[in-house]
Amino acid sequence: MDTRLNPENLLFAKRESVEMIELGDKLAPRFDEAGLIPVITCDDDTGEILMLGYMTAEALRLTLATGEVHYFSRTRQAIWRKGEHSGFTHALRELRIDDDQDCLLARVGLNGPGSCHVGYRTCFYRAVERDSLAEGAVVPLKQLEQERAFDANTVYAGLPNPTKI
Amino acid sequence: MDTRLNPENLLFAKRESVEMIELGDKLAPRFDEAGLIPVITCDDDTGEILMLGYMTAEALRLTLATGEVHYFSRTRQAIWRKGEHSGFTHALRELRIDDDQDCLLARVGLNGPGSCHVGYRTCFYRAVERDSLAEGAVVPLKQLEQERAFDANTVYAGLPNPTKI
Repeated sequence: MDTRLNPENLLFAKRESVEMIELGDKLAPRFDEAGLIPVITCDDDTGEILMLGYMTAEALRLTLATGEVHYFSRTRQAIWRKGEHSGFTHALRELRIDDDQDCLLARVGLNGPGSCHVGYRTCFYRAVERDSLAEGAVVPLKQLEQERAFDANTVYAGLPNPTKI
Repeated sequence: MDTRLNPENLLFAKRESVEMIELGDKLAPRFDEAGLIPVITCDDDTGEILMLGYMTAEALRLTLATGEVHYFSRTRQAIWRKGEHSGFTHALRELRIDDDQDCLLARVGLNGPGSCHVGYRTCFYRAVERDSLAEGAVVPLKQLEQERAFDANTVYAGLPNPTKI
């Protein structure tokens, strides 16, 4: 890959038919009404699913041009180079797209102990406790990752929490 | 898991604080303005990422109560039990939720040769051909899955294609 690419000059194909979208060899991503496409991020070394993020067209071009994954923060409404604060960057190893080209899958090298803003290795550190499901009760969760991978209070000191209530 | 659960009686917690959302042991999913939450689906046997789907609260309750993954089709605007036409169902093995509880991760047993409506095993059968990126050119894709897992024209005969242009 030529790392001196100007991201603005990377082009996407126009979505013209179901056939070219599903079976073609040109990237023709579909952005939603907010201009976003979801991105599943997978640790290429371990296979763990790290997070679901979103990209604008600009974030997607920056990711391709630099090889470092850039997302769009819906909370801050701004492009966000993963790891810009923590140093825990996502190095792009492979970028897949799905059948109808409205979802991306980034396989990344995780440069750091974890990827989740709470301090866990992945964002998916809890699961439904299905054995304890009961009518009239709130669905219970169980913890899957027992220890945090890093101290989020230190790593993200002074930054607002992105979680929306 | 009690398989005679009435889905309507499975409750979600009210989202009251960042702490209970990120660190609590109650399911408190955040549905977007359209009433949807994205769901990453992963083949529990192989680790392959099969697709990204969406659930309404009703689809999520049906999934938990039956152990069969139900999505919401944005194209058809209807609940959709995966495999209802093809027979290739997604048996729920584990349902994870992310830090801010606005994305699910379903680990499933895939009952069939593939999961993608085009006939491939997964929806992510293409990747960006990064070695061929060039300024002024459309971003090229390369094929990752060389053969289709089933004949989609036969399996989905008579059904509309869900891909939107």
